[in-house]
Amino acid sequence: MTVDLVKHAAEDTDVTFAARVSTQGGETRFNEASEKDAGLINYLMRDRHGSPFEHTSFTFYVEAPIFVVREFFRHRVGFSYNEESGRYKELAPVFYKPANGRPLRQVGKPGAYQFIQGDYKQKSAVSGDLERISTEAYGTYKRLLDLGVAREVARMVLPVNIYTSFYATCNARSLMHFLGLRTSRTNASFPSFPQHEIELVAEGMETEFARTMPLTYAAFERNGRVAP
Amino acid sequence: MTVDLVKHAAEDTDVTFAARVSTQGGETRFNEASEKDAGLINYLMRDRHGSPFEHTSFTFYVEAPIFVVREFFRHRVGFSYNEESGRYKELAPVFYKPANGRPLRQVGKPGAYQFIQGDYKQKSAVSGDLERISTEAYGTYKRLLDLGVAREVARMVLPVNIYTSFYATCNARSLMHFLGLRTSRTNASFPSFPQHEIELVAEGMETEFARTMPLTYAAFERNGRVAP
Amino acid sequence: MTVDLVKHAAEDTDVTFAARVSTQGGETRFNEASEKDAGLINYLMRDRHGSPFEHTSFTFYVEAPIFVVREFFRHRVGFSYNEESGRYKELAPVFYKPANGRPLRQVGKPGAYQFIQGDYKQKSAVSGDLERISTEAYGTYKRLLDLGVAREVARMVLPVNIYTSFYATCNARSLMHFLGLRTSRTNASFPSFPQHEIELVAEGMETEFARTMPLTYAAFERNGRVAP
Amino acid sequence: MTVDLVKHAAEDTDVTFAARVSTQGGETRFNEASEKDAGLINYLMRDRHGSPFEHTSFTFYVEAPIFVVREFFRHRVGFSYNEESGRYKELAPVFYKPANGRPLRQVGKPGAYQFIQGDYKQKSAVSGDLERISTEAYGTYKRLLDLGVAREVARMVLPVNIYTSFYATCNARSLMHFLGLRTSRTNASFPSFPQHEIELVAEGMETEFARTMPLTYAAFERNGRVAP
Repeated sequence: MTVDLVKHAAEDTDVTFAARVSTQGGETRFNEASEKDAGLINYLMRDRHGSPFEHTSFTFYVEAPIFVVREFFRHRVGFSYNEESGRYKELAPVFYKPANGRPLRQVGKPGAYQFIQGDYKQKSAVSGDLERISTEAYGTYKRLLDLGVAREVARMVLPVNIYTSFYATCNARSLMHFLGLRTSRTNASFPSFPQHEIELVAEGMETEFARTMPLTYAAFERNGRVAP
Repeated sequence: MTVDLVKHAAEDTDVTFAARVSTQGGETRFNEASEKDAGLINYLMRDRHGSPFEHTSFTFYVEAPIFVVREFFRHRVGFSYNEESGRYKELAPVFYKPANGRPLRQVGKPGAYQFIQGDYKQKSAVSGDLERISTEAYGTYKRLLDLGVAREVARMVLPVNIYTSFYATCNARSLMHFLGLRTSRTNASFPSFPQHEIELVAEGMETEFARTMPLTYAAFERNGRVAP
Repeated sequence: MTVDLVKHAAEDTDVTFAARVSTQGGETRFNEASEKDAGLINYLMRDRHGSPFEHTSFTFYVEAPIFVVREFFRHRVGFSYNEESGRYKELAPVFYKPANGRPLRQVGKPGAYQFIQGDYKQKSAVSGDLERISTEAYGTYKRLLDLGVAREVARMVLPVNIYTSFYATCNARSLMHFLGLRTSRTNASFPSFPQHEIELVAEGMETEFARTMPLTYAAFERNGRVAP
Repeated sequence: MTVDLVKHAAEDTDVTFAARVSTQGGETRFNEASEKDAGLINYLMRDRHGSPFEHTSFTFYVEAPIFVVREFFRHRVGFSYNEESGRYKELAPVFYKPANGRPLRQVGKPGAYQFIQGDYKQKSAVSGDLERISTEAYGTYKRLLDLGVAREVARMVLPVNIYTSFYATCNARSLMHFLGLRTSRTNASFPSFPQHEIELVAEGMETEFARTMPLTYAAFERNGRVAP
């Protein structure tokens, strides 16, 4: 998985200056965040005043397999997307295969599955089968293209573990909503059971968020990781 | 492809009564659409007064392959979705294969491709390859499940022509936006080059739209198939 | 304040059938809600699976003063609006005046004001001043119209307590979000301090919501009145 | 009216790099816009490929009277707002009065009004009446506050020509949609009849848009001022 923050216009002071227009009116100039900003941000997060967090913008470039992107693109509000197209270009033979420690078995009941390590047989089957199907499907894809079949038809044979790439632009509020649902942190207010692979993407986004908006991130953590 | 209109609250008079609150105020009772309604709807469509078209609701149930659903779910505004989950259930072995007349070759330049009939060799390759890869991938999927591998992992081998199912709820405005982009009618104001398979879905939705909101549909047709 | 539910396509079973497409796939027919539905709805609410609540539609007709409508229209996601226009029609001389028991004084600190009863002097000032300014402003408005001044200019003298009317269409998820913020119930997860007058509107909407989707409403109440 | 672009992350190359991920895949580094970019942007605008325009962000600070802000805030999609609150702060006595050349009379039919200059009598009535009602309403507002009446109640006497201030954040696509509806340029594809005062705000925003994204702006102008 690749997660790059390619561009952002997002600082903690964007939140506090937007919030202060309510109580003070007038335009506030953008300075360094202060102690007071931390308090205000925490109050906004806690009492769910979400709109001040929207005056921010993050553009991520992501490479991930289709089955991950399908979950990602369910996020509609405050998210903009442009993705590599299997109609306009030939897709590259890059396929996802779980890393060695990726839990392969699910236990527990629907809605609250736990995932545990697979045994040797499972590991080798997953690894071998993904390798085999990916190779065979891609070979077929290429043969169809060579025969002159349209890309949009030939791609139908490709499995959902093939990589795609996209730009996603969001704001701090929609980003926190995403992180609350697509990570499984124990300090969260309500349980979340994201698939391991989208959590990898979310972790990459979270790192950038924490770095660019440290006060907002701290307030998010302190208030149960629920987007305001 | 399956497209069922499972529920709707959408009539032409929903549009005109919402529109008339602007000019007359007060609550208007809902009667039969009249001659005057047709004129008002056409005016609203032509001059792009879009909001009166939003007080309507359509819920569709759709069965379509993943590569179609990926395009469908790019529609964010005014669309709600719930889809069958490869994490929560075992997917059924239903795969898309192009019907006989489906054009298999693309000519022309990017952004304005034309699609033409394939020759015998292409037809038989597409048909045979999709059959073969689908069967093999599904067999592998089942073996992995039998081995105790989690559904969310086993599904990674499945190709994008496997069917999934979902509910989509939209309003007349978002629906027209969808139809304008996902059909390729010649009476449209600007060219649209949807993939054949999503156009099949769009045609199913268009039929229901035309039936339930005939005046709105007529105005959509008359004004270049651009959503207001 | 007037709040009429003019149209709705919203039942508890809309939620459960949309939710079940995830776990069962296929189209489910719409029957009566059962015991099992209540449990599923409560689970969806608790764990914040919001999308199944969106396949529903409520259209309200509301009459309220401008200062209330200004707060109402801040709700963007999942809300559609059409409002009476001061540019297209002459506004009627209907003005809001607080009822006798309406608390007139605020105590406490910003973000958590409490409101308490006014004394006799305050009551009579508010009542007399609103009456006087409304009458004078409306008289001026009419004189300007009689002089041939455009409605969009003449209306500039009108105070924000003049009534306007609008249609609002939303779904159960956006409606719950609205109710969570625009009512001040003590069983809510986080404090909310809506202005009294928008709370009157919200109460009217809540009554209709509780009546049409009783299981969803019960789950909303049980889970801290937070929209999923 | 005040319109300040307080912050932006918006360049023409944001559009082309997002667009090129479709056809080339992979992350493109951000360079200077070239001749080729101009062509691509024009093509995207003409054929209504709107999503690449969304990876941009503009934050405006605006001061305008309430009757303008009411129209502004009808723009929901791709717009975020924070406004000065009459509940949290005492509003300042700043009121809008039409400048000398502002047309005061409307002629023509609903939906396509033309506005023409007022005569001396109309000008002096509008000017005198706005002055008088504003002064009287504000005096009353202050007296109510001095009596200890809550701000949220006292403000009910204030007319809609009082100024308020807000931050609005949008992207290039939502901004173009706004400009298409809230300006009345003759080179537009369909007629638009915005109120003069919101057009003043829109012109301020358009100037900044043209300056920061000149190629996108040129394509917007060339293609009928319709947002893609």
